[in-house]
Amino acid sequence: MINKYYSSMLTEKDIIFEIFQYAQEKAKLVGEENIYDFSLGNPSVPAPSCVNQTMIDKLNSLNPLSLHGYSPSFGIMEVREQIADSLNRTYGCHYTSSNIFMTIGAAGALAHALRAVTNPGDEILTFAPCFSEYKPYTAGAGLKLTILPANIDSFQINFDALEEHLTPSVTALLINSPNNPSGIVYSTETIQKLSEILTEKSEEFGHPIYLISDEPYRDIIFKGTDSPYIANFYKDTLTCYSFSKSLSLPGERIGYLAVSPECTYSKAIIEICPQISRTIGQNGPASLMQRTVGEVCTETSDLSVYEKNKNILFEALIEYGYSCVEPGGTFYMFPRSPEPDSYAFCEKAREKNLMLVPGDIFGCPGHFRIAYCVPTERIIKALPVFRELAEEYHLPNIK
Amino acid sequence: MINKYYSSMLTEKDIIFEIFQYAQEKAKLVGEENIYDFSLGNPSVPAPSCVNQTMIDKLNSLNPLSLHGYSPSFGIMEVREQIADSLNRTYGCHYTSSNIFMTIGAAGALAHALRAVTNPGDEILTFAPCFSEYKPYTAGAGLKLTILPANIDSFQINFDALEEHLTPSVTALLINSPNNPSGIVYSTETIQKLSEILTEKSEEFGHPIYLISDEPYRDIIFKGTDSPYIANFYKDTLTCYSFSKSLSLPGERIGYLAVSPECTYSKAIIEICPQISRTIGQNGPASLMQRTVGEVCTETSDLSVYEKNKNILFEALIEYGYSCVEPGGTFYMFPRSPEPDSYAFCEKAREKNLMLVPGDIFGCPGHFRIAYCVPTERIIKALPVFRELAEEYHLPNIK
Repeated sequence: MINKYYSSMLTEKDIIFEIFQYAQEKAKLVGEENIYDFSLGNPSVPAPSCVNQTMIDKLNSLNPLSLHGYSPSFGIMEVREQIADSLNRTYGCHYTSSNIFMTIGAAGALAHALRAVTNPGDEILTFAPCFSEYKPYTAGAGLKLTILPANIDSFQINFDALEEHLTPSVTALLINSPNNPSGIVYSTETIQKLSEILTEKSEEFGHPIYLISDEPYRDIIFKGTDSPYIANFYKDTLTCYSFSKSLSLPGERIGYLAVSPECTYSKAIIEICPQISRTIGQNGPASLMQRTVGEVCTETSDLSVYEKNKNILFEALIEYGYSCVEPGGTFYMFPRSPEPDSYAFCEKAREKNLMLVPGDIFGCPGHFRIAYCVPTERIIKALPVFRELAEEYHLPNIK
Repeated sequence: MINKYYSSMLTEKDIIFEIFQYAQEKAKLVGEENIYDFSLGNPSVPAPSCVNQTMIDKLNSLNPLSLHGYSPSFGIMEVREQIADSLNRTYGCHYTSSNIFMTIGAAGALAHALRAVTNPGDEILTFAPCFSEYKPYTAGAGLKLTILPANIDSFQINFDALEEHLTPSVTALLINSPNNPSGIVYSTETIQKLSEILTEKSEEFGHPIYLISDEPYRDIIFKGTDSPYIANFYKDTLTCYSFSKSLSLPGERIGYLAVSPECTYSKAIIEICPQISRTIGQNGPASLMQRTVGEVCTETSDLSVYEKNKNILFEALIEYGYSCVEPGGTFYMFPRSPEPDSYAFCEKAREKNLMLVPGDIFGCPGHFRIAYCVPTERIIKALPVFRELAEEYHLPNIK
């Protein structure tokens, strides 16, 4: 009588977590300092001190009954205002509190966005490489997910694939920029072109094609990267955000859904979000966390280490002969695998205590992901292992 | 293209919240002290000081990267151990950490329990009066919910109705004791009889009938009440708990699912919970809250005010001629409506600034709910209004 569907999910292994666990076990044998674990996307810099300070201030000063009491299903009004204001100041948008719905991280925001603007059986498109959790997220909403092939030369949008698959049964697109696993940020040109196609096709089909934009890495952008705020380019955009990466709070599960004020049915979309919550057992994020991020939503952790790590690692990999599109943000890099079978390559790396994730699980075989959210020393210590692998594969540029 | 199902839910009004909002608006006109708002089940006593103190200690002493970092999908191991130990000490059970799954309140626990032990299309039974949210909770899991009529003389289980409806298509029962809205606690006799029936029928049907026990009010028990720990009586029990009421933390959304170690497929049930989370966009409760409740899970707020309020209110209502089953716990009371149409009665009460909730929304017409989680002075000030209503209805015992 156990649920058959969820039981069947157990057989799809969680490869990232398996690699992470292997690394932990191996560390016990050979010492943590000899393991180069680039498997997990867990922030490596602490939350800024204002986070803990804000929490302590609230715990000391607010009436516990109101601090820990029920918050409205949409989120705490003041916090929704603070977030709308911060988005407006940063990106020149026109959100009001009524466009913001507080959620349990980006996963909660996506759970609501996906259910709000689709009906079960609808088709949704996303682009490889993509976060592996998009499969269960969309399956849970009863959607048919089609992962379009990557444009592996730039990891910008593969418009040929899009035009081929954009049929009237598609009611939403799911995109992720800055991207996990490629680290690529969609350019203004890309977003403008996407917006034109979606606008045209929405008209042609007689229904809006919603753009669900998953943006947990929005604040980790490297120097010189063109990083448009996507909702400013396409009105039917639902933006899903998490404070996990910007404030290094992944365990606190706090984020929001922002529905563009010009979005078709924007009011109805927000209005049905609490109804969605009722059916999936979510009732808003922890109230102390809401109040805290409301206050510090313009702050970030010291994110500079990610760019420093990227520079060191990217330069070295290119020197060793790897082929890789240079990341514009995040803390991921997605080089081509020196052999077509990225599982085989990651296995070879693993034998050298270097933990990498095969690109196949992101819908993009022939690549591997490096999560470089680790101390810089760890990057530097791992470089000889990357070099050794390059030599074994006789990569072209080895000097 | 907006989701049709969730949009349709908007037309079912949230009556409790409407009454609460009316009370808030009216308070602006006539003064808060003249409004007797018994609509919402929001704890009226603050969290014990150990809650805030534990949070502050953890914020001051733990490494922010691990404090705010990702926690395992099942919950933080140490916290699961603390909860298992506390249940074992209090109720003489034999849980281990592997039987505990940390959740976003009782709603999150129910979302997982309901999906784990059923398949879409299964039938689930519950008993009136019941929490109005059971409808969306079970609908979200794709279940057919049948609400069995109440035993209005005692609000113990209506076994005749149960035997009539317990067919092989029923895979789970959902119960709530101490009960919202009646305040009744199922007795040892009730639970024993229920266990016997379920055991017999499980054998007859050749599949377990799981008992999903929703227990957010478990710690609010009045003197002399027989309050068995349900999982000790029936092995196939999934216990859903929230710290909302015991620690006055409803806004922090923290609870757990405890699967009885002897439960059929207990290991598989817990194992699939993280798979369920992946499809409904929940990824565990906030890590600071997990660590906090782990530490203080044996504590409670000062819950004595609820019993004091119950005593004053119950005695008065009986004196005025109302008919009511005496609550054994919670902060709710569920008297018979002086006229069959409880909406009409609640409307009359509302005209006198007394906010009550019609029993119909709990599947039990002809009754009304009083949420007496308010300061005792407010109860005392409201008594004349209850008396006035009794007089208007010529209730029999008025002296």
